[in-house]
Amino acid sequence: MNRKLRIAMIGGGIGAFIGSIHRIAFSMDGHYELVAGAFSANPAVSKKTGEELLLNANRVYPSFQKLIQAEALLPADVRAEVICIVTPNHVHYEPARMALEAGFHVVLEKPMTFSLEEARLLHKKVLESDSFFMLCHTYTGYPMVKQARQLIQAGLLGEIRKVFVEYPQGWLHTYLEGSKQKQADWRTDPSRSGLGGAMGDIGTHAFNLAEFISGLEVSKLCASVNTIVAGRKLDDDGAALLQFSNGASGVLMATQIAAGAENNISIRIYGEKGGISWKQEDHNSLRVEWPDRPTECWRAGTGYLSEFATQNSRTPAGHPEGYLEAFANLYRNFARTIMAKENGVTPSAIATDFPGSNEGLRGMAFVEAMIRSSQQQSWVDFIH
Amino acid sequence: MNRKLRIAMIGGGIGAFIGSIHRIAFSMDGHYELVAGAFSANPAVSKKTGEELLLNANRVYPSFQKLIQAEALLPADVRAEVICIVTPNHVHYEPARMALEAGFHVVLEKPMTFSLEEARLLHKKVLESDSFFMLCHTYTGYPMVKQARQLIQAGLLGEIRKVFVEYPQGWLHTYLEGSKQKQADWRTDPSRSGLGGAMGDIGTHAFNLAEFISGLEVSKLCASVNTIVAGRKLDDDGAALLQFSNGASGVLMATQIAAGAENNISIRIYGEKGGISWKQEDHNSLRVEWPDRPTECWRAGTGYLSEFATQNSRTPAGHPEGYLEAFANLYRNFARTIMAKENGVTPSAIATDFPGSNEGLRGMAFVEAMIRSSQQQSWVDFIH
Amino acid sequence: MNRKLRIAMIGGGIGAFIGSIHRIAFSMDGHYELVAGAFSANPAVSKKTGEELLLNANRVYPSFQKLIQAEALLPADVRAEVICIVTPNHVHYEPARMALEAGFHVVLEKPMTFSLEEARLLHKKVLESDSFFMLCHTYTGYPMVKQARQLIQAGLLGEIRKVFVEYPQGWLHTYLEGSKQKQADWRTDPSRSGLGGAMGDIGTHAFNLAEFISGLEVSKLCASVNTIVAGRKLDDDGAALLQFSNGASGVLMATQIAAGAENNISIRIYGEKGGISWKQEDHNSLRVEWPDRPTECWRAGTGYLSEFATQNSRTPAGHPEGYLEAFANLYRNFARTIMAKENGVTPSAIATDFPGSNEGLRGMAFVEAMIRSSQQQSWVDFIH
Amino acid sequence: MNRKLRIAMIGGGIGAFIGSIHRIAFSMDGHYELVAGAFSANPAVSKKTGEELLLNANRVYPSFQKLIQAEALLPADVRAEVICIVTPNHVHYEPARMALEAGFHVVLEKPMTFSLEEARLLHKKVLESDSFFMLCHTYTGYPMVKQARQLIQAGLLGEIRKVFVEYPQGWLHTYLEGSKQKQADWRTDPSRSGLGGAMGDIGTHAFNLAEFISGLEVSKLCASVNTIVAGRKLDDDGAALLQFSNGASGVLMATQIAAGAENNISIRIYGEKGGISWKQEDHNSLRVEWPDRPTECWRAGTGYLSEFATQNSRTPAGHPEGYLEAFANLYRNFARTIMAKENGVTPSAIATDFPGSNEGLRGMAFVEAMIRSSQQQSWVDFIH
Repeated sequence: MNRKLRIAMIGGGIGAFIGSIHRIAFSMDGHYELVAGAFSANPAVSKKTGEELLLNANRVYPSFQKLIQAEALLPADVRAEVICIVTPNHVHYEPARMALEAGFHVVLEKPMTFSLEEARLLHKKVLESDSFFMLCHTYTGYPMVKQARQLIQAGLLGEIRKVFVEYPQGWLHTYLEGSKQKQADWRTDPSRSGLGGAMGDIGTHAFNLAEFISGLEVSKLCASVNTIVAGRKLDDDGAALLQFSNGASGVLMATQIAAGAENNISIRIYGEKGGISWKQEDHNSLRVEWPDRPTECWRAGTGYLSEFATQNSRTPAGHPEGYLEAFANLYRNFARTIMAKENGVTPSAIATDFPGSNEGLRGMAFVEAMIRSSQQQSWVDFIH
Repeated sequence: MNRKLRIAMIGGGIGAFIGSIHRIAFSMDGHYELVAGAFSANPAVSKKTGEELLLNANRVYPSFQKLIQAEALLPADVRAEVICIVTPNHVHYEPARMALEAGFHVVLEKPMTFSLEEARLLHKKVLESDSFFMLCHTYTGYPMVKQARQLIQAGLLGEIRKVFVEYPQGWLHTYLEGSKQKQADWRTDPSRSGLGGAMGDIGTHAFNLAEFISGLEVSKLCASVNTIVAGRKLDDDGAALLQFSNGASGVLMATQIAAGAENNISIRIYGEKGGISWKQEDHNSLRVEWPDRPTECWRAGTGYLSEFATQNSRTPAGHPEGYLEAFANLYRNFARTIMAKENGVTPSAIATDFPGSNEGLRGMAFVEAMIRSSQQQSWVDFIH
Repeated sequence: MNRKLRIAMIGGGIGAFIGSIHRIAFSMDGHYELVAGAFSANPAVSKKTGEELLLNANRVYPSFQKLIQAEALLPADVRAEVICIVTPNHVHYEPARMALEAGFHVVLEKPMTFSLEEARLLHKKVLESDSFFMLCHTYTGYPMVKQARQLIQAGLLGEIRKVFVEYPQGWLHTYLEGSKQKQADWRTDPSRSGLGGAMGDIGTHAFNLAEFISGLEVSKLCASVNTIVAGRKLDDDGAALLQFSNGASGVLMATQIAAGAENNISIRIYGEKGGISWKQEDHNSLRVEWPDRPTECWRAGTGYLSEFATQNSRTPAGHPEGYLEAFANLYRNFARTIMAKENGVTPSAIATDFPGSNEGLRGMAFVEAMIRSSQQQSWVDFIH
Repeated sequence: MNRKLRIAMIGGGIGAFIGSIHRIAFSMDGHYELVAGAFSANPAVSKKTGEELLLNANRVYPSFQKLIQAEALLPADVRAEVICIVTPNHVHYEPARMALEAGFHVVLEKPMTFSLEEARLLHKKVLESDSFFMLCHTYTGYPMVKQARQLIQAGLLGEIRKVFVEYPQGWLHTYLEGSKQKQADWRTDPSRSGLGGAMGDIGTHAFNLAEFISGLEVSKLCASVNTIVAGRKLDDDGAALLQFSNGASGVLMATQIAAGAENNISIRIYGEKGGISWKQEDHNSLRVEWPDRPTECWRAGTGYLSEFATQNSRTPAGHPEGYLEAFANLYRNFARTIMAKENGVTPSAIATDFPGSNEGLRGMAFVEAMIRSSQQQSWVDFIH
């Protein structure tokens, strides 16, 4: 890698949680330089954010449309190359579509779109494009999540039989949107969040993690999706029985009303020969259980891991990395993929191991299936 | 308590795992004396077991029928008072019925009976009887499980919204019954185990724990029950979405094919104000989570627990008791209840806090509902 | 084992914590029958305790002298065979000596004696006697402690280099003896406890555990022993640098003023090739660390353990045993050793693996060395 | 903060572990821009590192002397303002002294200097200088370490009585320097590392953490320092009994031969009213133990923490930060302090809460005392 990629942000203005997370993530390894932004639908907020970030005022835009149009006209060695979109769900599809059409690489927050229909269109657009596209399923960036996937692909557990995945949160256990708290406000609003509340926000993460690690696809599910807090307009809790393509079964749980819970997304997978478990609360450990020998604790940063884990670490074992580094791994691999193309070489399988539009489409199909199954009180097939 | 209760065993011959567990459990606190037994359907095994246990040969019987008949004829101060039945499921109802009719107190292993129909009959029999009846849902004997129930009853969590309960085991992840392994052999045989395999064996434990701690009743469920190991005749895996009487929802998981898993039955319950979690792997801790203050770890043997927990402990905090003591707690409370009656006093609520025939009936209704729901691929109501 | 051993108790009257622990421990596996007792220096308390325990009043004695004299005169098939001594330290030596001289087997609480001089005498007495003698270093009865010792003896860690052992308690962080609390009262009284307070009470446990698991002997130490709570007459806290016979070094810590601590005795040992750690708080796990492969968690009740661990378990993996079962293991092995002699066979190495008078003598030498080193502010050799 | 500070590095060439850690740490929050470097004593390596880091070739220097001289001559708005020194210990004092004298702010790796004498000189130099100076005791940057210190300063534990601190590593359990491994090579070489090996490298971290959290100073110690691996020229293991200024006692352990150990620096502190424990392996938790109520687990990112913790976090509870963020906290606070001065305001107590030359001097005095005590086999006082 011999230069920094120029990146522009859509969304992520002052006070937006996820905006600063993205900036840390893409800054961490020195592969990106922030050059432009349309940080808010409110031009004044966008302007002020640009000032705080020490950006050239000419490249701080009052709208995403202006950003895409103006940057596209800049000289090739000046204009942004990557556009990172961190807006609420209803402002995902349009800027992503425009950016792809204008030849930018795109990094997009999850869930991919407002609706399943938009997801289908965007996935098609990505397939037709020469640009690269990344969807921010951050948890797939953890080294021990990578290791778990590798371990299963190598057959250590034998055929997979059972997948348990869950994402318990507690921050919406009260009617937080009543106070206009920024994060809660749009996430619980159907006009900005889409069909799903918790299912879109964190259910998609759990779903994606299950498919990523297991290497399997969910084919059917039977769900119970609930709105537990009075007055809320979208779901804040749900669970489903899962059926996978290979015949394995599973359970998925995602809730935002588990009062006292933090963000302990976790997964357990059992195969014919053994089982694994991983949880964000202890993300540098991967527990591997065997029927006939001691349980093993594989640790990030050690010498016995696969390259997929090793190349997604920065520190030796026991100097813990965390969520921001997992996020930075996504950005780093995305940069390596882009630069490989620029340099005319094939990017490594490790570099290209980031979530894309297919994962985004499956996530939106998951949300739709959860809601439909719950309404019908029956098992449903996935519709793409 | 000023004398030992005389106890007789049906089942529990040499090599039977659960028989020796019961003997340790009822011996631990000095409230019982083993005086008789019909330890096996094989009279020779029964005889040999009696010898090993140093019993009077006259009171070692070749069949449960003989035991009940003969003991009933002995003088009141000699004959057994409590009959403990630890046979496979198909030999639960008949000896329990006979023992109750002959005026014995009864301790019975779970699941209560071979069929739901038998469960209805036995429950009726218990209600009509003057004898006491205990069903061995051992996990309810742990002090921190008692504490969890008390804490919820006291309203610390507010209205309950969500219950997650699970019982993962791995010991049947292969076709173990093919080798005639004693424990696997009858548990996987429909003619001895009944309608359910894993659902009866451990699903009932998970179900009972959820109802015991939450103080709620499951009213509906939607299940997926599987037979995963080729050649097996009964289910070895299952999960269900649950609906509780107060509107709370939940998830139950029970499997015996989770290769590498031990017996880590665990539960998490969330209410409006906070959540609790308990797991057998760390059974002396009860984790209590709050949205706005530090997570608490309540520990067995400490001074701040309720009497329900304290009176089910023997050692100070940090000198861990375990599964055998939880089992002994059931027996001790049962003895205290019997002796209170003998002494003409009302037993304490702590003494009578052991599972009975209503729990047994609900457990059998649970098994039936799981199988029915899975076959119908739909939500089903409980039938009693 | 074809009969129960007859056991008598000295000490352990109503309200004595450790008395009921012993009774549970020797009852658990059916190898002992309590037949006599001198439960208190107060004859009325002894009498009342005997009644509660349903003993024959003739065999409840007002003093230990009377018990030993009277039982010795009973017919060989009636009299007690084992005498269990659970009195404060200043009443250890005399009853133990008398019991040995009268031909009884002896079980004695730790520390072995009031003084190092008494320990020398008692050790000599045991060596000269035909009776068996057991000292209650209970923690050596845990299956995973046995496994740890076996694993080191088998050379898996290579030469041992480093031993860290600690026993933190908090129950004496205030001047509890001021309230005459029974446990605190005698333990903090030099006329009943001896030279050491915390060093004798729990320091000896930590010291014994270190020598038992490592298979090494401490040869020198440099200690700091403190009396932290104002008004206290004996030490309540201490630590030492250790030197072992093979050149390994170590650290020992024992304190009773660690406010909030329970009884989490724990140990870590590192050799040339790897390390182990064990702690009472998670006593069914033995963590084994390697430089070049995943950390292992060996678990009680599993199939891959040595016979030393397996024969000291009763339940399958995941059904946790605890402190009482560890204690019961000591008693069970002691019974097996006695019965082997009676049956004219050699007891197994597993049966004879219980602590004896040599461990007791070393424990007293440890206490003496700790106090001496701390007073001299220098390294000291062990004196036996 | 309205501009980026210009930073230059001395040391940290290609392949140096700690160099890239520093670059991530100072990049993370956007407060620094790397403008110059003398990355290696080998000019070619320095040049190549500069190229990889996309620096202006004019500002990549062949030696630290050249860097300091040349940067000092650049215009005030161009030249580096902060000089970060990450060389081996024998190249700490001279560049730090020169940088301070030339008016640069200085960030220096630990231990502060090669010798205690140099430490005294450098501390004096810092006191006389108008520049700011930071020593990289990274572990003090963790939010829950900050919280621990605050909690003790607020008196929640009462008077401190006991401090246990340890830093176990395993990476030097073999003669790694024999293979010229870069990290091992200089750390085990007395001519580059100084008086202490493990004591300087990690013992100083443990020592600093104990003083930082407890708010106490060690006044005396009695140590055993060892060279365990054959052929090694410096200590690789040590432990000490500690005496604190307020009369509290403690134990410190630091070893690099604990085969299998990672970097689990940990600490426990007990006061009159309760205790705390923190360990890097679970660094987002602070366990607080009480004698009479449940143990508490305080968690990073939650709403009930002090500002000292909150302002050293970036993500909500459950999205774990780690070691790199702790390091970045040091840099962020250092930048805030510098900018406060530039802006003519008083920096907050949170901003100035980073380790400085007094901590560095105490660390070197610690190393000297450890070695001296071990050689004399006696307690020694601290000499500054």
